Amino acid sequence: MSSPQTDCIFCKIIAGKLPCAKVYEDADTLAFMDIGPVSKGHTLVVPKIHCDPITAAPADALQKTILTVQKVARALVKGLGAVAVTVTQANGALAGQVVPHVHFHVIPRFEGDAQARNWLPGKYESPDEMNRVAETIRRAL
Amino acid sequence: MSSPQTDCIFCKIIAGKLPCAKVYEDADTLAFMDIGPVSKGHTLVVPKIHCDPITAAPADALQKTILTVQKVARALVKGLGAVAVTVTQANGALAGQVVPHVHFHVIPRFEGDAQARNWLPGKYESPDEMNRVAETIRRAL
Repeated sequence: MSSPQTDCIFCKIIAGKLPCAKVYEDADTLAFMDIGPVSKGHTLVVPKIHCDPITAAPADALQKTILTVQKVARALVKGLGAVAVTVTQANGALAGQVVPHVHFHVIPRFEGDAQARNWLPGKYESPDEMNRVAETIRRAL
Repeated sequence: MSSPQTDCIFCKIIAGKLPCAKVYEDADTLAFMDIGPVSKGHTLVVPKIHCDPITAAPADALQKTILTVQKVARALVKGLGAVAVTVTQANGALAGQVVPHVHFHVIPRFEGDAQARNWLPGKYESPDEMNRVAETIRRAL
């Protein structure tokens, strides 16, 4: 449960074997851009330890992860001017979970946002745009 | 920020001045049924200390609250047979937040659930039904 899973995309990202637009990293958690953002700035926060679903997460990992979620939420407000923030975390395919490694979505909301309670993946114009948004958030941390 | 707010519905529920279908309570957190459930068993988890939004929550309160979220999620699986669980937390009206006191929605998902990624409040047939579901979850804690 706790060692990196060779078939887990997020474990590969954590290990640096797959790329990501990193927003934040500390000893226990990693935050990076969702490549199918609900809104621009949509960030994923994961514990570095492999665990899934939330019911099986070590308490310590969960507690560290939620503090990184808070840190990212602050940065979305400060850095992107988000007027609201959605935090959401899915467990199981029926809940919309795609990658089976505990992750929190931290989604900035802006005026005119029609998806306040829905979930329709959007996209960036380019990887560069995604990286620029990531950088803006990083600077606000 | 930390003392009970006289105009806060959740502070009133925490203080016992308004009723709720309680699912769990400890010194720092409270879990109770959402009266407009996305699915039956939809539970709210709140820190007892008044804080809002997540960006302003004391770290300690947030860490205790996420452990109660985990506890409730386990109970939704064990007690209600949920095959998936959504955890979500809104900050700001634009994110769909109605009560300005930090709260996590813990939503059980079942086969045939058409709302995996959407958010359309449902309803219980009666307060009794809600209470029975609450009891089922309590027993599974």
